[in-house]
Amino acid sequence: MSQVAGQVWTERLQRRWADGRMLCVGLDPVWDRLPVALRGSAHVEESIYRFNQAIIDATAEFACAFKPNIAYYEALGSEGLSALSRTVAYVHAQYPELIVLLDAKRGDIASTNEAYAVAMFDVLGADAVTVSPYLGAEALEPILARADRGVFVLVKTSNPGAGEFQDIQIGPNEPLYEGVARRVATAWNSRENCGVVVGATYPAEIGRVREIIGDMPMLIPGVGAQGGTLGDVLGVGLDSTGGGVLINVSRRVIYASTDEDYAVAAAGEAGQLADEILLARHG
Amino acid sequence: MSQVAGQVWTERLQRRWADGRMLCVGLDPVWDRLPVALRGSAHVEESIYRFNQAIIDATAEFACAFKPNIAYYEALGSEGLSALSRTVAYVHAQYPELIVLLDAKRGDIASTNEAYAVAMFDVLGADAVTVSPYLGAEALEPILARADRGVFVLVKTSNPGAGEFQDIQIGPNEPLYEGVARRVATAWNSRENCGVVVGATYPAEIGRVREIIGDMPMLIPGVGAQGGTLGDVLGVGLDSTGGGVLINVSRRVIYASTDEDYAVAAAGEAGQLADEILLARHG
Repeated sequence: MSQVAGQVWTERLQRRWADGRMLCVGLDPVWDRLPVALRGSAHVEESIYRFNQAIIDATAEFACAFKPNIAYYEALGSEGLSALSRTVAYVHAQYPELIVLLDAKRGDIASTNEAYAVAMFDVLGADAVTVSPYLGAEALEPILARADRGVFVLVKTSNPGAGEFQDIQIGPNEPLYEGVARRVATAWNSRENCGVVVGATYPAEIGRVREIIGDMPMLIPGVGAQGGTLGDVLGVGLDSTGGGVLINVSRRVIYASTDEDYAVAAAGEAGQLADEILLARHG
Repeated sequence: MSQVAGQVWTERLQRRWADGRMLCVGLDPVWDRLPVALRGSAHVEESIYRFNQAIIDATAEFACAFKPNIAYYEALGSEGLSALSRTVAYVHAQYPELIVLLDAKRGDIASTNEAYAVAMFDVLGADAVTVSPYLGAEALEPILARADRGVFVLVKTSNPGAGEFQDIQIGPNEPLYEGVARRVATAWNSRENCGVVVGATYPAEIGRVREIIGDMPMLIPGVGAQGGTLGDVLGVGLDSTGGGVLINVSRRVIYASTDEDYAVAAAGEAGQLADEILLARHG
């Protein structure tokens, strides 16, 4: 369940970014959208695990990370959580050069975040997680203190209504999301294990956050189903080395087909996205 | 797994508040702090469930709600989640006049919040949940749309560092947490199923939020282990009917003793808190 020995998550990402692999595959299984053949057994844990295995095998060569969103596993009960745990272990065993970024958006008081750190890093084995900033760094300390794991803080989320609070002005020409990015970059990142989350649906904001955070890693969800374009995103999102981003795509890849050829279709879609990323990077 | 027929969660709370029962018992089991006798079996699910049953039976008469924080169950893996699910069902079966408020502090984009709504309301059976406001109402809509369930939004949390973002000024004499409370009261609560969370450690803020939200329910954690006092809290927190608050206490009750007399000790502590609440209410 622990991290792959000798390979810090940031180093693994940098190695993938070096040859342009910035795709992050979102593993968000929804029971009703699984191929019928997999749903036949009604054995939830095994079906979800086998679906994830097939997607992982089909897309790993194009990716730098897998990002399961824990909500989809919780919706399937304790069997879903078991499938998630086995999925993380599978990636670590078969593809130790990739990372597993658990999308959990957790955030509670410090004593409770100790329990979340155990759940996410030790029980589930994630290399990195997403967290919500609302309670501040003092509360997140038990998660931030895990220096060998990554902590991606929500800055500007990809949803249409993200601005309700995130765009509120907190100073002259400074919206809240920029204030969050600044705090993460200047204070929370003392162990150099932080990243940020900015939605592909807000390219201008990606550029402003990149200016604030320097070369910190940036998770960018919302390409594809949510509508952001790769050209817009990479034009402003890359770090000074031409890497630094995890471009997450979930539904477009894992539901490329819902027939028996779903793994082949996922590979095709991931390969095409990888090509588009390479093109956009050099464009 | 569903709600108790014919008894909306708000009505159940109001009935308890009418005779001054405002105690909310936090069910946050930590394996190493359980009574040795329960840990002997090393059967995690059964041990946690039996611990919770005993605490519930010992404290229900003094309480209006039970509040399991899901982090502590996730830290115990899928067995922990099974114990949580059984715990919620136990409360509904044995004490249908109380509610289960699941402390999860969830918040993701809308499509993912659909999965969280299933996980929290349908799989686990919670009557109400806590959510984080950072992504805004548009993202939370699938949770808010469950009109028969409660949605308690984090406004000012109980942790010492809560102010890092929550106290940022967003207008003339208006900190962010007040802005959140105002949005919840004026826009998010159209189905009259919202509540707010304000820490007992910030009594002045409890008073300001009460002015903003009128008679909406307020969850107040942080009495006891975190240091807030009942007199301060109830002096400013009650609604116009003399109720309206869920005073959460976790560790002081459930770990009143870690010996075999833990249930008796929990009952004693809960009874004393109930008396203190009655006194403070009339003081």
